[in-house]
Amino acid sequence: MSAPARILVLNGPNLNLLGTRQPEVYGAAGLAEVEQLVRTRAAELGVEVDFHQSNHEGELVDRVQAERGRAAGVVVNAGAYTHTSIALRDAFLAAELPLVEVHISNVHAREEFRQRSYLADIAVAVITGAGILGYRFGLEVLAERLAAQS
Amino acid sequence: MSAPARILVLNGPNLNLLGTRQPEVYGAAGLAEVEQLVRTRAAELGVEVDFHQSNHEGELVDRVQAERGRAAGVVVNAGAYTHTSIALRDAFLAAELPLVEVHISNVHAREEFRQRSYLADIAVAVITGAGILGYRFGLEVLAERLAAQS
Amino acid sequence: MSAPARILVLNGPNLNLLGTRQPEVYGAAGLAEVEQLVRTRAAELGVEVDFHQSNHEGELVDRVQAERGRAAGVVVNAGAYTHTSIALRDAFLAAELPLVEVHISNVHAREEFRQRSYLADIAVAVITGAGILGYRFGLEVLAERLAAQS
Amino acid sequence: MSAPARILVLNGPNLNLLGTRQPEVYGAAGLAEVEQLVRTRAAELGVEVDFHQSNHEGELVDRVQAERGRAAGVVVNAGAYTHTSIALRDAFLAAELPLVEVHISNVHAREEFRQRSYLADIAVAVITGAGILGYRFGLEVLAERLAAQS
Amino acid sequence: MSAPARILVLNGPNLNLLGTRQPEVYGAAGLAEVEQLVRTRAAELGVEVDFHQSNHEGELVDRVQAERGRAAGVVVNAGAYTHTSIALRDAFLAAELPLVEVHISNVHAREEFRQRSYLADIAVAVITGAGILGYRFGLEVLAERLAAQS
Amino acid sequence: MSAPARILVLNGPNLNLLGTRQPEVYGAAGLAEVEQLVRTRAAELGVEVDFHQSNHEGELVDRVQAERGRAAGVVVNAGAYTHTSIALRDAFLAAELPLVEVHISNVHAREEFRQRSYLADIAVAVITGAGILGYRFGLEVLAERLAAQS
Amino acid sequence: MSAPARILVLNGPNLNLLGTRQPEVYGAAGLAEVEQLVRTRAAELGVEVDFHQSNHEGELVDRVQAERGRAAGVVVNAGAYTHTSIALRDAFLAAELPLVEVHISNVHAREEFRQRSYLADIAVAVITGAGILGYRFGLEVLAERLAAQS
Amino acid sequence: MSAPARILVLNGPNLNLLGTRQPEVYGAAGLAEVEQLVRTRAAELGVEVDFHQSNHEGELVDRVQAERGRAAGVVVNAGAYTHTSIALRDAFLAAELPLVEVHISNVHAREEFRQRSYLADIAVAVITGAGILGYRFGLEVLAERLAAQS
Amino acid sequence: MSAPARILVLNGPNLNLLGTRQPEVYGAAGLAEVEQLVRTRAAELGVEVDFHQSNHEGELVDRVQAERGRAAGVVVNAGAYTHTSIALRDAFLAAELPLVEVHISNVHAREEFRQRSYLADIAVAVITGAGILGYRFGLEVLAERLAAQS
Amino acid sequence: MSAPARILVLNGPNLNLLGTRQPEVYGAAGLAEVEQLVRTRAAELGVEVDFHQSNHEGELVDRVQAERGRAAGVVVNAGAYTHTSIALRDAFLAAELPLVEVHISNVHAREEFRQRSYLADIAVAVITGAGILGYRFGLEVLAERLAAQS
Amino acid sequence: MSAPARILVLNGPNLNLLGTRQPEVYGAAGLAEVEQLVRTRAAELGVEVDFHQSNHEGELVDRVQAERGRAAGVVVNAGAYTHTSIALRDAFLAAELPLVEVHISNVHAREEFRQRSYLADIAVAVITGAGILGYRFGLEVLAERLAAQS
Amino acid sequence: MSAPARILVLNGPNLNLLGTRQPEVYGAAGLAEVEQLVRTRAAELGVEVDFHQSNHEGELVDRVQAERGRAAGVVVNAGAYTHTSIALRDAFLAAELPLVEVHISNVHAREEFRQRSYLADIAVAVITGAGILGYRFGLEVLAERLAAQS
Repeated sequence: MSAPARILVLNGPNLNLLGTRQPEVYGAAGLAEVEQLVRTRAAELGVEVDFHQSNHEGELVDRVQAERGRAAGVVVNAGAYTHTSIALRDAFLAAELPLVEVHISNVHAREEFRQRSYLADIAVAVITGAGILGYRFGLEVLAERLAAQS
Repeated sequence: MSAPARILVLNGPNLNLLGTRQPEVYGAAGLAEVEQLVRTRAAELGVEVDFHQSNHEGELVDRVQAERGRAAGVVVNAGAYTHTSIALRDAFLAAELPLVEVHISNVHAREEFRQRSYLADIAVAVITGAGILGYRFGLEVLAERLAAQS
Repeated sequence: MSAPARILVLNGPNLNLLGTRQPEVYGAAGLAEVEQLVRTRAAELGVEVDFHQSNHEGELVDRVQAERGRAAGVVVNAGAYTHTSIALRDAFLAAELPLVEVHISNVHAREEFRQRSYLADIAVAVITGAGILGYRFGLEVLAERLAAQS
Repeated sequence: MSAPARILVLNGPNLNLLGTRQPEVYGAAGLAEVEQLVRTRAAELGVEVDFHQSNHEGELVDRVQAERGRAAGVVVNAGAYTHTSIALRDAFLAAELPLVEVHISNVHAREEFRQRSYLADIAVAVITGAGILGYRFGLEVLAERLAAQS
Repeated sequence: MSAPARILVLNGPNLNLLGTRQPEVYGAAGLAEVEQLVRTRAAELGVEVDFHQSNHEGELVDRVQAERGRAAGVVVNAGAYTHTSIALRDAFLAAELPLVEVHISNVHAREEFRQRSYLADIAVAVITGAGILGYRFGLEVLAERLAAQS
Repeated sequence: MSAPARILVLNGPNLNLLGTRQPEVYGAAGLAEVEQLVRTRAAELGVEVDFHQSNHEGELVDRVQAERGRAAGVVVNAGAYTHTSIALRDAFLAAELPLVEVHISNVHAREEFRQRSYLADIAVAVITGAGILGYRFGLEVLAERLAAQS
Repeated sequence: MSAPARILVLNGPNLNLLGTRQPEVYGAAGLAEVEQLVRTRAAELGVEVDFHQSNHEGELVDRVQAERGRAAGVVVNAGAYTHTSIALRDAFLAAELPLVEVHISNVHAREEFRQRSYLADIAVAVITGAGILGYRFGLEVLAERLAAQS
Repeated sequence: MSAPARILVLNGPNLNLLGTRQPEVYGAAGLAEVEQLVRTRAAELGVEVDFHQSNHEGELVDRVQAERGRAAGVVVNAGAYTHTSIALRDAFLAAELPLVEVHISNVHAREEFRQRSYLADIAVAVITGAGILGYRFGLEVLAERLAAQS
Repeated sequence: MSAPARILVLNGPNLNLLGTRQPEVYGAAGLAEVEQLVRTRAAELGVEVDFHQSNHEGELVDRVQAERGRAAGVVVNAGAYTHTSIALRDAFLAAELPLVEVHISNVHAREEFRQRSYLADIAVAVITGAGILGYRFGLEVLAERLAAQS
Repeated sequence: MSAPARILVLNGPNLNLLGTRQPEVYGAAGLAEVEQLVRTRAAELGVEVDFHQSNHEGELVDRVQAERGRAAGVVVNAGAYTHTSIALRDAFLAAELPLVEVHISNVHAREEFRQRSYLADIAVAVITGAGILGYRFGLEVLAERLAAQS
Repeated sequence: MSAPARILVLNGPNLNLLGTRQPEVYGAAGLAEVEQLVRTRAAELGVEVDFHQSNHEGELVDRVQAERGRAAGVVVNAGAYTHTSIALRDAFLAAELPLVEVHISNVHAREEFRQRSYLADIAVAVITGAGILGYRFGLEVLAERLAAQS
Repeated sequence: MSAPARILVLNGPNLNLLGTRQPEVYGAAGLAEVEQLVRTRAAELGVEVDFHQSNHEGELVDRVQAERGRAAGVVVNAGAYTHTSIALRDAFLAAELPLVEVHISNVHAREEFRQRSYLADIAVAVITGAGILGYRFGLEVLAERLAAQS
């Protein structure tokens, strides 16, 4: 019997402050609530989940590379690096990992420079404005994809 | 005891062909499967749902207006009108209805002219590329929002 | 003795909600007040007036076509279609009807996409931000034009 | 012996006024002449032809959808919707119908906003400025294509 | 009994030539007719009016500043300075005067560089193409605004 | 009895390779087939035709100049010079020759830089994507134009 | 015997410093040399000349207006106002005066913002980079034009 | 013993209203406080200071020209002319005066059209958002520059 | 008696080379001189100061986060990250720290890509081109702000 | 005694048709009149002149190269190649020849694509709209430049 | 035993002047040195080489066409035609020849209009700024490609 | 006898995956082969080489700074940071190190955002699409430059 698939939940810069940072934009729930919400649903779906957060672009690139051939997919909220990091995009392409891009707030209603994403066109799905529910949705999209392929 | 809230699921042009139209882009499921998926979840959440599809911009505007003060929210896949209809945007603003914008395919990986949405910045959430799951996610976002307000 | 000239007052999408829709933007008066205001002045000027509102682009095109060689001019608030409908522009050109473009709010102080009008450069005059007075002004411009030509 | 192939000739907004509308731009011939010209040539080519005109975007979308798996191709003059309707483009893609885009006048010598076509890049051929001959040329292109495939 | 409110009618560069300058664009009436038309209506409305014209940007700025706390509003045809003077915009903001922007010709049908206005988005209303009637309309908008506030 | 009118069919750079060059884009027919197709139709229409191809911009300019007052019109496929040669445009204007612009492939579905044509707005008609039929259509447009003028 | 025609030589901001200002750009000759050069040639051509310089946009506008129906043409070096003053453009249009635009330095080799001129497209001729000779050339163009019309 | 260096503090349009104009943007201090703040520091630094304000672009140009070879530098808040006056830029270049550009408010957080400055790239330093302190800082930068050169 | 407020002076990439790096652009003083200059003034103003430099974007983000609720403000020269780091912008927003943006050279006179700052519109003040004096000015702006709030 | 300097007058595509081509734009004089006008003045100035016209870009490049170290300067009307030929620009740079760019018509009042010149910023002077006088002016500018250098 | 493969080294406009033309940009070596450098290396690699230079776009197109099915690849320095010639691009596509684009100078550090290449995206490799070494590198890339395919 | 010059070969993000990452784009050779290829040639040329790879922008900046006055040049493949890192550009400028920019694939044939390089205009040479040969070419360019300077 093979081990269950594992999904990485990857958070980028300033998301360690979730819950305390601009709660009128990002809500009151922190990364701990995100983790609990995702773990609960993962258990129901029979997949494993892993969590990683970093403010360092290079560290996010390192982690995505390290998951090559290991994780079954990534739910990623790359924060500001969404809009500026081609290196992270390239890491996903190099690692050949399916990803779902998640944003807690609705970036479409924010600054012009947040309208460009270097991940969106290589993502399976993009979910914005659903609050921390977005992470759970990302998990479900990847899980369904796994199921369809197995 | 008050009546349960009602959510409208509104589909725009060419979505009546879902399941037969470019299945490599839009998948094999049709509007019937969408309806079943959403109804099942709505029952669990204790909300009512209604469905409407039209290829006519004016008819979509009429329906949104008619829901003013009635529906508790709209899950909307406006199809091509997402990118061209300011009238539909104005109808949502006039009707003061919360909406979640849904696209079956990942529009971010498609033509340049599909990158502009007249609904995204007034939506609660935007979900693209999640297939027909996106409709269920839209329902959940609106239901959670209702719960948070009650 | 010839029949008095007739002016059409044409309203586009969402203007049926005037008075209830975003009153902080559009004011508290509805289409009924617009009609009364215009009819009063029309009587003084000795012209007839007709009113039509539709949320359907095609219906507005049909009506403009139908007025070819009949109406003496059109006071038109095309709402959102102002910014998106080349078909309506073409209808005015095809019907060879003089028009005055009216907007209740000052569109110049609003979103970027409301700065483009497909009617403005073929209009006799453009009046924005004057509230429902704008309709009366439109009537006066067309009436004076009729007087100058007769 | 199979039934002859059928070609739809689809005309968009304001083309019902052909012959009376801006004759210095569009010429003196009306839709009746177009129909006669096309029918004559169709008879020679052994194909059937059908005609439809509408000022309503949604109705054009409906008709294109209805031809899916029926018509062998469409000669379309979408008028102003050429430049604004992504819905019509999507309908052609969904219906998988080969199309030839026709314009009576030479749109390249007209306003900037008439330079963008949502149909041109998915069309087999584009013919502008050939007057009503363009419809006949469109028929011939589609007929030759049918012949090449049979 | 308080003194009647006073409205300033401010004209910018080259409007001193009104009536003689390009009459096919600006009409045959001069500033004297403008003054008479406005004074007549002002008397009916019970407001006072003042007139000022200058070809000098600095002088227009000086005059607007001088009306701070004095005039009840300004009907302004800033001519070419409409498109180039941020200083005049700032003067209106500094003086906190409501303004109606007026243009005799329909600037929307003219050169590209006349499409930008530094006044339009801070104006109450904008009236273009109504000929010298535009000044009277401007007066009426400001008078009605005064009445609504008193 | 006057001599029959003569139409020049002018082909630009790389069209000498027609039939061997990228047949998936340009088809299998060569210039010989083009000539035969056009000559056949010209005979029916009672006009003469002449053919010229060159890879040299200056030679194309020379030829167009030389036809001033001689040819009755030009069916021109200027190939790449369509998009870069203002000199060729000026030659047509200087020679006062009516032209029909033809492209074998549908340039609207190709690279961005092929969307700009220096000939289209001074052409009578533009025909793209009709394969070598386009040359015959071009001939017919010019012949009909001659007939209408005689 | 009628009086000789009079040409105005109008200089804009900072040209009073000619000869001392950035001589590596503008040369060592001052306005006095310009005047002498132009007067000498004017005497040969039998026309009168007048000179005016101002740093004030409004004063330049006033002067152009004042020449309406008087001067036979204007050689104008509007300096920086060339690039920013629509008011000066409008003054020339209102005064119906033919003008030749002159710049001492070659503005085409300078900053991007000096590439836009509000006078060039309404000028008879534009001469840049010819040093103070440009003023003489401007005079000759206007004189020849006068001769051709008389 | 040579006379002390003199620095000009030059204020442009609407800065005469400082203290009363939009105090939420520009603060409560007026030009008198600016003068006192600057004079106090100038005395400590052993330099003289002069003050000039005008709403007229031409007058500002005149003054800058007049300081050529006299003032040792200029602290300039050109207000709205910062964004529109190439003439003022040219005056500084012609007069060869070092300048420090000062804005009381942080223009980077304001309208798009305030992001362009015709002075910034020829200034020694640019100080925005420091309130009236900015004038003192400007003085210090110029004084230190003088000290370094002596 | 409460502890004195503390201001962080944060330097970004390549500023560790100050004094040796391109001295014709950045001057001869190094970070040690910056520190001495700022400490001297801080002592006079009764505030504490801290210094931090890093070439790593993530480390700068970490430090800004760590100062949330601790530092009273930040004088920041983010070097090249000014123009590329949305993550740093978000860190300042998340940490709710007032900042003054400083650049030693006048970035307005440099490359186009240095004209965009992700910090300027959320800064209190921006000071460019004042050399290392800019750091002292930044301190003074923040100190005055503290004084005004206490 | 050294030989007199020689100036080349170089004409580009379609200028061989001068006098017959669009005389309302280019006037009635042909290249022969240009040559006579220039030769007369050259004789007075004591310089030799040579004339060359070609419709071929490569031939113009060849000729400019051949003049390296021979001609003292070039008066060039490159016609349409002005706007498209970087090769001609490079030839002038490689041959190190001073040039004056001449256009008979005022290109600033013509199509947008005629506003870009690949020669203007490397020219000594640019003269447009002066008719064939422009060639004489070009000669004078180069002659004066020669005189100043001798 | 088959004949060795042959590589064409193709040089465009003004490269015949290499060594004498702007040596500070292009170096002191001429085409003879290029030929020697390339021949030496070709001998080592066992491939033949051919050289061609022309200032005529059409001649370059002719030569590329002539190599169809003959040369094994082309090292091309198209000079200015790199930036303007779609005809040359089409010739390479039509001839189905692999190419390496070479520039002696680093075009990335030069004018904006040299940043666009019509060859770069269809080239195997692009080498700029390596001086005449770039030709040798181009040869090596094509030789290695041949070796990998044999 | 002095020590041999040393060249740094610097690789940016995701290049550690070379050989396994998207081999259809980047080829099958890894960094080990790059090192061997470069070391072999370096031995022939008598220069030393050093290798460094990092996914962290800050670490790349640190390394470049550390080579100031040590390495004789850098062959750099900055991967994605080529397109986003001004900090790396500034590090090269600050360290005053000559660099050759290398890309394994032909970036000109890839996404739009890969067309902008912050290194290209300060590089000696740019080599793209030559596979791992590009590193050897980079070494040769720098070695030849050293030889020319010694």
